[in-house]
Amino acid sequence: MKYFNNVPKIKYEGASSTNAYAFKFYNPDEKIGGKTMEEILRYAVAYWHTFTMDGSDPFGAGTMVRPWDKYTGMDLAKARLDAAFELFEKLDVPFFCFHDVDIAPEGRNLKETNQNLDTIVSLMKDYMKDSKTKLLWNTANNFTHPRFIHGAASSNHADIFAYSAAKVKKGLEIGKELGAENYVFWGGREGYETLLNTDMQLEMDNLGRFFHMAVDYAKEIGFNGQFLIEPKPKEPTTHQYDFDVATGFAFLQKYDLQDHFKFNIEANHATLAGHTFEHELRYARINNMLGSVDANQGDPLLGWDTDEFPTDLYSTTLAMYEILKNGGLGRGGLNFDAKVRRGSFEPEDLFHAHIAGMDSFAVGLRVAQQLIEDQVLDGVINERYNSYNEGIGKEIVEGNTDFHKLEAHALELKEISHQSGRLEKIKTTMNQYLLRAYAGE
Amino acid sequence: MKYFNNVPKIKYEGASSTNAYAFKFYNPDEKIGGKTMEEILRYAVAYWHTFTMDGSDPFGAGTMVRPWDKYTGMDLAKARLDAAFELFEKLDVPFFCFHDVDIAPEGRNLKETNQNLDTIVSLMKDYMKDSKTKLLWNTANNFTHPRFIHGAASSNHADIFAYSAAKVKKGLEIGKELGAENYVFWGGREGYETLLNTDMQLEMDNLGRFFHMAVDYAKEIGFNGQFLIEPKPKEPTTHQYDFDVATGFAFLQKYDLQDHFKFNIEANHATLAGHTFEHELRYARINNMLGSVDANQGDPLLGWDTDEFPTDLYSTTLAMYEILKNGGLGRGGLNFDAKVRRGSFEPEDLFHAHIAGMDSFAVGLRVAQQLIEDQVLDGVINERYNSYNEGIGKEIVEGNTDFHKLEAHALELKEISHQSGRLEKIKTTMNQYLLRAYAGE
Amino acid sequence: MKYFNNVPKIKYEGASSTNAYAFKFYNPDEKIGGKTMEEILRYAVAYWHTFTMDGSDPFGAGTMVRPWDKYTGMDLAKARLDAAFELFEKLDVPFFCFHDVDIAPEGRNLKETNQNLDTIVSLMKDYMKDSKTKLLWNTANNFTHPRFIHGAASSNHADIFAYSAAKVKKGLEIGKELGAENYVFWGGREGYETLLNTDMQLEMDNLGRFFHMAVDYAKEIGFNGQFLIEPKPKEPTTHQYDFDVATGFAFLQKYDLQDHFKFNIEANHATLAGHTFEHELRYARINNMLGSVDANQGDPLLGWDTDEFPTDLYSTTLAMYEILKNGGLGRGGLNFDAKVRRGSFEPEDLFHAHIAGMDSFAVGLRVAQQLIEDQVLDGVINERYNSYNEGIGKEIVEGNTDFHKLEAHALELKEISHQSGRLEKIKTTMNQYLLRAYAGE
Amino acid sequence: MKYFNNVPKIKYEGASSTNAYAFKFYNPDEKIGGKTMEEILRYAVAYWHTFTMDGSDPFGAGTMVRPWDKYTGMDLAKARLDAAFELFEKLDVPFFCFHDVDIAPEGRNLKETNQNLDTIVSLMKDYMKDSKTKLLWNTANNFTHPRFIHGAASSNHADIFAYSAAKVKKGLEIGKELGAENYVFWGGREGYETLLNTDMQLEMDNLGRFFHMAVDYAKEIGFNGQFLIEPKPKEPTTHQYDFDVATGFAFLQKYDLQDHFKFNIEANHATLAGHTFEHELRYARINNMLGSVDANQGDPLLGWDTDEFPTDLYSTTLAMYEILKNGGLGRGGLNFDAKVRRGSFEPEDLFHAHIAGMDSFAVGLRVAQQLIEDQVLDGVINERYNSYNEGIGKEIVEGNTDFHKLEAHALELKEISHQSGRLEKIKTTMNQYLLRAYAGE
Repeated sequence: MKYFNNVPKIKYEGASSTNAYAFKFYNPDEKIGGKTMEEILRYAVAYWHTFTMDGSDPFGAGTMVRPWDKYTGMDLAKARLDAAFELFEKLDVPFFCFHDVDIAPEGRNLKETNQNLDTIVSLMKDYMKDSKTKLLWNTANNFTHPRFIHGAASSNHADIFAYSAAKVKKGLEIGKELGAENYVFWGGREGYETLLNTDMQLEMDNLGRFFHMAVDYAKEIGFNGQFLIEPKPKEPTTHQYDFDVATGFAFLQKYDLQDHFKFNIEANHATLAGHTFEHELRYARINNMLGSVDANQGDPLLGWDTDEFPTDLYSTTLAMYEILKNGGLGRGGLNFDAKVRRGSFEPEDLFHAHIAGMDSFAVGLRVAQQLIEDQVLDGVINERYNSYNEGIGKEIVEGNTDFHKLEAHALELKEISHQSGRLEKIKTTMNQYLLRAYAGE
Repeated sequence: MKYFNNVPKIKYEGASSTNAYAFKFYNPDEKIGGKTMEEILRYAVAYWHTFTMDGSDPFGAGTMVRPWDKYTGMDLAKARLDAAFELFEKLDVPFFCFHDVDIAPEGRNLKETNQNLDTIVSLMKDYMKDSKTKLLWNTANNFTHPRFIHGAASSNHADIFAYSAAKVKKGLEIGKELGAENYVFWGGREGYETLLNTDMQLEMDNLGRFFHMAVDYAKEIGFNGQFLIEPKPKEPTTHQYDFDVATGFAFLQKYDLQDHFKFNIEANHATLAGHTFEHELRYARINNMLGSVDANQGDPLLGWDTDEFPTDLYSTTLAMYEILKNGGLGRGGLNFDAKVRRGSFEPEDLFHAHIAGMDSFAVGLRVAQQLIEDQVLDGVINERYNSYNEGIGKEIVEGNTDFHKLEAHALELKEISHQSGRLEKIKTTMNQYLLRAYAGE
Repeated sequence: MKYFNNVPKIKYEGASSTNAYAFKFYNPDEKIGGKTMEEILRYAVAYWHTFTMDGSDPFGAGTMVRPWDKYTGMDLAKARLDAAFELFEKLDVPFFCFHDVDIAPEGRNLKETNQNLDTIVSLMKDYMKDSKTKLLWNTANNFTHPRFIHGAASSNHADIFAYSAAKVKKGLEIGKELGAENYVFWGGREGYETLLNTDMQLEMDNLGRFFHMAVDYAKEIGFNGQFLIEPKPKEPTTHQYDFDVATGFAFLQKYDLQDHFKFNIEANHATLAGHTFEHELRYARINNMLGSVDANQGDPLLGWDTDEFPTDLYSTTLAMYEILKNGGLGRGGLNFDAKVRRGSFEPEDLFHAHIAGMDSFAVGLRVAQQLIEDQVLDGVINERYNSYNEGIGKEIVEGNTDFHKLEAHALELKEISHQSGRLEKIKTTMNQYLLRAYAGE
Repeated sequence: MKYFNNVPKIKYEGASSTNAYAFKFYNPDEKIGGKTMEEILRYAVAYWHTFTMDGSDPFGAGTMVRPWDKYTGMDLAKARLDAAFELFEKLDVPFFCFHDVDIAPEGRNLKETNQNLDTIVSLMKDYMKDSKTKLLWNTANNFTHPRFIHGAASSNHADIFAYSAAKVKKGLEIGKELGAENYVFWGGREGYETLLNTDMQLEMDNLGRFFHMAVDYAKEIGFNGQFLIEPKPKEPTTHQYDFDVATGFAFLQKYDLQDHFKFNIEANHATLAGHTFEHELRYARINNMLGSVDANQGDPLLGWDTDEFPTDLYSTTLAMYEILKNGGLGRGGLNFDAKVRRGSFEPEDLFHAHIAGMDSFAVGLRVAQQLIEDQVLDGVINERYNSYNEGIGKEIVEGNTDFHKLEAHALELKEISHQSGRLEKIKTTMNQYLLRAYAGE
């Protein structure tokens, strides 16, 4: 214990607690619908935002005060590992996630890079033996280094395709070694800046080929983690091929990959694509493609990925609603792909931020569970769609109609009576559920 | 009582009530910091959205079921008046607002239009004698009729300038007659579609002249309501001259009108301009220009004025925080410039929607008051800015420095130690305050 | 000839013409790469915007001066037909498009509506005999009437599903009767306002069923027009199921409909979805799904569908580039789904606007053809991607690699040398091509 | 000549040139309306984007290949200076601009930083003796260093206010020393991230005090450059106090600073604020506040400052139209505050990019001049507003009316006849002017 000496182990103290280093709403062992909150929420710490991010922005240098930054190279990598497991333990968090470059520095060549990874992975495995914290997923960072300037698997340069493959190969091996539950593909440079110099068809075909090879290799080595695609629309690349869940789903179907992948859905990526977070979750859920979640939030008035820690209780409630309706996240989890603000540069802010996120999703879980138990939204929906339970409606959903029968039905209709959608009433009910969550009502 | 027979008088029943026709959080007579909630919140019903809006959108016809729509012409105007005061009484709301065309149909010419207005205003005055509901503000609709196609006071056509003046003149007379607390100017057509055919300087100068004449006329007739400009950025006109509060403030200063006007700030207009609602309130407040509020909300993922009833408790809390810090709204109020969704077409939805809005701002008031009493944000700010209370900081705010002294100070500085902005901690505290509002904690 | 007496027949006069009623760049009979401009561009007039749109907006009444508006009911429908073929002839335009409700008023019931349609369709057929102008596509308006308040094929109400089917059935019959080249589905109400009351899975499944029945019925009656889906993201419905081309493609694949549909791509819908027009065209093209085009443009600073006539020559050039690369539009065409501005209310503006659009795409065609002939962009792309023509690159595209071989290749790599993407140089070359188009250089 | 050996001196060769290292449209010595293009356009190279920017983005490391990067510290600063004047000469550009930190590295303390600046400024002065290239403006970078984490002149910390003042003091001295035409204030950190911890009133008051001290100091030392504020809405700070020109104008008026400042208007900042570039120019122009221009362009589909080199000829034409109508830019100029794309990493791209920008504004100038000479837009406007030249219109603009007279006029009006705004016709005329610019027509 070295890096966070003035931070105690975080425990649940309830909504009335004035202790900044306590959970007010997240009670890991409390059961909700038969499972503990910890089992349902499956929180994960994101290694990059928490241990490597320096707070720089396009107009400013790094600001973060991180005691381990006195080290460099492999020593820095080891110090971060030490800090990480100290933080994991104090937060009592069940999972973490990383990119290859988060945990070990690149070497002078790929071979040396892989050796650096091996060293750290071995150490990490030792830490994990004494820790409850497991690996939710790992991934390869194929976007930061200048070699990925024109893409990775969708690069115009075949050598880069090969290099990217080698990095993913290593990533799958690491995933297997550490028992990762999932493996994530985020294509930060898989897209284009301008069509004027882009062969989109070749690039997408190559991306399809790349994913098939990854599937084959995982099978070969017996890595059984769930493969996840993380959609994002337009940052850093002007247009990214995995714009949103629907775009990813189109891609997976076209290249016959839909049985091998699910989606890792990030709240801020959803809003950048013009969707609500819950829309992306719903779209994935009804297509059986909801894999995992990057839990953060954006600023709707800013046009870039702000990756804030999630605190909007409306959003966490609607997200948890979709997750509960999905029967949970399976092998996925809630990864805080979120960074403290540039102005929140003290080490303690890492705890305040994670507490904020964990409490916010815990509130979301509690409210969503109550909405489901009371059939608040299900009741609305059952009533609204009841015309499909009989008569012509039943024939439609059972596939027993055609345009002739439907026209005949329509020609006989007198007035069609609609019911109000009652959105304002539903929204005020939602507020009531939110506010009563801690009123014992 | 004719139009809303199946709706009871709405009363406060508390957060645990399951009665859809009851306030759960708005308790008019409850005192908050020395005043009743009714006195602080000064709710108003918007005549247009509630009694004339038909639910049409750019791709669809009207949908609203309104029992008074069986009438036409002046009969319709009278029926609406009847419905209005029935709704006001059932909601027990202290204020309402209207445009001229909301309450009486246009005649074949201006004279006839004014006669129609006189008839209705006289009837309205009678209703008001027996009602607690007063006129928060009225205004002239100088944007719907095709004559305003190229603007009103900023039209390219002098006749339209004159016509607009005549309508505002009448509006001021009506305001005086009915004891309006304010008079509002929203320039729906005051702006331009394209600079290619626009003399922006002449148009803005004319707008300045127009406002001066309005000020003069109000003085002449002894109408002492507060004049309010309502900023909006880009709908219906591509660029509107009152883009946001700051733009309006620049205009008022340039034309020496700043002592005669304040702002009527609408939440959805703020977000369309790229600001938060609370930003616009704060900007107006610190310039002593906060007059009144159009209480609604937008959809951050849609690019137009959705005018939803306000239900976002974060937004209502931060708005009420600014209002309380302003010492209240003075003669202004919270006008629900909000419309039920096109799918919420039943008369009952008007009540559900107003209850949603009234309860939401009531929650906002309660939480904001608690934040102020506990000095939650004031404490943060006092600590953050304490360097301005002594030494060089004190000299700066007292105006006793210059670049020489400041440079001398800077040259002597060793390391400057900053403190974290603690945004994540503050946000989680805000959530705690919100959730505890009804937990008795 | 009754309605546009002061407008002459529009002819090509060249870039230096000062005649407002002449084409400066569109020369129908001029051959470009073996075909006439008329054959390539396949322009169509949109019946709704040109003959029925009244210029109203959410804050203003109709402004359009249309001489045929003195009629009502079926007389108005007939007058519009008369005006339409007068305008078609004066513009010498090869195609037009319509929704059912554009050409005939709804009756008291579906039967009467269909009778009205039959009357007008019969008259239209007569006009078409004496005219060069053919039907590019027709469609059913299943969004304006209040019955579609909660959707059409995705309605919560089975009767509406049936009613929608009956309208599409009639539309297919009309398409066959008039020799339509295509049939379009735009789902203005196929989507949701809020997930809180929506069964998204049932709605999308029903939409899939609906399309299959449409395919079956077209086959049954021998209508061989191309089926087209027109994507749009969020207006009028908060979320529409056909958000963009990729989303539509995901849908078509899931419901096994991809062999029966292509896309009708609208420029303004592309930008509302966060894409460039050319992106949507490219995505459709490389998936063999580019069917037809709604030629208009939006205002990037406004968040709604402005449906402006297309005048941006960058956009028309890039659009024509994709279309030429697609080998043309096949049975599709360029439909001006565009409306004159509310302030352009005179009948003559309809001609100015169509001339603007036709000239702009003609410039785009000329510049795009020159870019292709000179291999400007192809040259850039061939050089950028040449690593895929040999060695490991060739093996990748031929499917002869796996992660083992790729890693072996990567481990042997020394420095990977990239080339600049040269975007600035390409853009200035584009400008040179644009400006030289009429300089004889 | 060391750094750009394979780049020749750039000269004008005309539109038909195929030489990538030649101007096709910018002919410095050609006279347009009595002045040379060089005199009107007053182009400036931005030191930061051209000599210090490394191509990093929030998801990727630097990519730029810059031969001078082999040096470090003061040697790097000197090498950049050498490279700068080589590039200036090859581009034959009349001006350049810089921030303090662009030209010299920060030292261990302010004193040392100032010494570094003195060294470089002295060298720069020597270079300038032998060069035509002058200093358009300089400024202090009060946003990159972590000390500005919570603002500069609007910081919560008085020491930072002092430090910022010292840096501006030095900047004014450098400006005087080098004969700068202007001095710019861009408040990258002058704003707030959240109102929850911000005393907006104190911060804005301090900003006002700061500017007054800067004005006083410039007067004291006899620096007579024009002071310029550069508005920007929301990057890097969530809300910046100089959101747009109107907001800046409100501020300057409130703090009685309007006689001492004008605006430096950046195209990409305009669009981020929801305005067109020409809107901001027009607003400044009619308020006599147009000082200088940061010539770049954004991507309307991306929500951040992309700072692209300007190539959109519509935008450059409308910008030059405002500038010509302003009687030129006075002491201001067109500064290419633009960076080559991350993928355009070769040194040659710096030339391609500047040629693109210089040619694009040269086209804009030519087209704008022709539009003015032919009174294309003036003719439209004179006709549209002619009602203000006589009768009631004349009385309005001369201030001889009141609401009584205007109402009397309105009551007498019969039908008011409007004219079409003719936007489509104007736009197609604009295209004709653009395309004919090089057709000798």
